[in-house]
Amino acid sequence: MELYSYFRSSAAYRLRIALNVKGISYQQVPVNLLKGEHKSANYLALNSQGLVPSLKTDNDEVLSQSPAILEWLEETFPDTSLLPSSSLERATVRSWCNQIACDIHPICNLRVLNYVAEDLGGGSEGKLAWLHHWITTGFGALEHQLADVQSQGNFCYGKQLTLADIYLIPQVFNALRFNVDMAGFPRIMAIYQHCNTIPAFIDAQPANQPDAS
Amino acid sequence: MELYSYFRSSAAYRLRIALNVKGISYQQVPVNLLKGEHKSANYLALNSQGLVPSLKTDNDEVLSQSPAILEWLEETFPDTSLLPSSSLERATVRSWCNQIACDIHPICNLRVLNYVAEDLGGGSEGKLAWLHHWITTGFGALEHQLADVQSQGNFCYGKQLTLADIYLIPQVFNALRFNVDMAGFPRIMAIYQHCNTIPAFIDAQPANQPDAS
Repeated sequence: MELYSYFRSSAAYRLRIALNVKGISYQQVPVNLLKGEHKSANYLALNSQGLVPSLKTDNDEVLSQSPAILEWLEETFPDTSLLPSSSLERATVRSWCNQIACDIHPICNLRVLNYVAEDLGGGSEGKLAWLHHWITTGFGALEHQLADVQSQGNFCYGKQLTLADIYLIPQVFNALRFNVDMAGFPRIMAIYQHCNTIPAFIDAQPANQPDAS
Repeated sequence: MELYSYFRSSAAYRLRIALNVKGISYQQVPVNLLKGEHKSANYLALNSQGLVPSLKTDNDEVLSQSPAILEWLEETFPDTSLLPSSSLERATVRSWCNQIACDIHPICNLRVLNYVAEDLGGGSEGKLAWLHHWITTGFGALEHQLADVQSQGNFCYGKQLTLADIYLIPQVFNALRFNVDMAGFPRIMAIYQHCNTIPAFIDAQPANQPDAS
């Protein structure tokens, strides 16, 4: 498989972790967002949204949108499952995923931050305040919800590594990169530190990618 | 079941359509976002994010985040399936859902618009430009992707009503409400018009809810 990726993209980072956890081999095709390669005709022909990641399967089918790709990976490679066994537990884990994938990450991605800084005239200060506001708001609710299960293990869902960890770790990485104060989120930070002792997570870190700069 | 809902919330509107399509009976508990009822202690005890919708099941479990709830409904009430039968087709449909659920809707919901207008000083003009920009960007990519299947039927995924329609119709409703020019999106508009001839969609429209005002 080929993963069209950018080392700092949270959404690509999610897929790198999932592919590693499931032991699926893949090659990376770097797409440099800062150089605008995601807006090139070649890339738009693969992904008309012009966003990373895209995943080209062994059958040359091109999938887009990391949440859809994660569900596809889970259905297609069910070993080392990333979801709990009951439907109700899956709803809980997916709710945590959505809180990051819908209510934090896309509000704070590069294109939105650029719009805030430039089109809205917020500048770099306005951009930073924006990012801190939405990450802190989102993590506040999540920290509260993780309280019940954290005592039972080091992952979001207790002892089981799930999609929730795969969404959370890139988002925390992003928060730390922008100096968000994480003191109010001890459970989230404990999960972050634990996951980053696991090779599948370490190998997926932005600094360890071929296009890291 | 009890659906904690606000008539104009796109995310609640999705659940109303899905519940109607699957023929599941439910009661609505209105949560008035303009009056701040989503920030009341009672509601935060149910949903610590303070967002609608929430769904209380027959077993008094409270689910949050509409994408997670839609997957739960699909798993729990598999009749009248809202996803295609093959994993690859499901990835396509889920990608369309994500494009709305991640890259349009949460960037344009009430709390973000308020932040743009007030905290960032964009005012009502800046807020409207913001909303038009992200809806138009998102619909542009989606219109392109729907081209291939539209000729085969009146839904996003050709002849089958799927989750993609359930995400799309509330987002189009929202676009029209804010006078987004939809002339460039003929396929999306054809799907919108077709769906709104179906009772499950009509009954879910904001104007037809008990808390409509």
